[in-house]
Amino acid sequence: MKARVTVTLKNGVLDPQGKAIVGALGSLGFDGIGSVRQGKVFDVELDGSDKAGAETKLKAMCEQLLANTVIEDYSVELL
Amino acid sequence: MKARVTVTLKNGVLDPQGKAIVGALGSLGFDGIGSVRQGKVFDVELDGSDKAGAETKLKAMCEQLLANTVIEDYSVELL
Repeated sequence: MKARVTVTLKNGVLDPQGKAIVGALGSLGFDGIGSVRQGKVFDVELDGSDKAGAETKLKAMCEQLLANTVIEDYSVELL
Repeated sequence: MKARVTVTLKNGVLDPQGKAIVGALGSLGFDGIGSVRQGKVFDVELDGSDKAGAETKLKAMCEQLLANTVIEDYSVELL
């Protein structure tokens, strides 16, 4: 089973990398960009076909390893 | 207008970071994980409301800055 886990910074957490990207896009001539915030995506392949079990497992992975839940939110999507 | 750009490694490109994550998950007790591949996600806020124009602009941003098109694929999604 395939799943996609998306980890993004929580609102209010500063994102200097995103700010740098806005700057770089501006110097490339792209204007009208309000903001950019960068996150991570993990494409996970799991054995088995138990959807509910897989979702629970993926959430546990996020809590323990994939996301820093102090500053990041995560979402799990089964494909 | 909000958009999400997802940048992932092309098939066949080695992902040592993903392999490290599989190893780390294994040592945390998560088994049955076939593979993990890590990518990036950019949440972009654009001025204006021209959807077609925004999509063209976002694709140009990917080609020029956000993705390394030699080894990465990108997808653009308007929210």
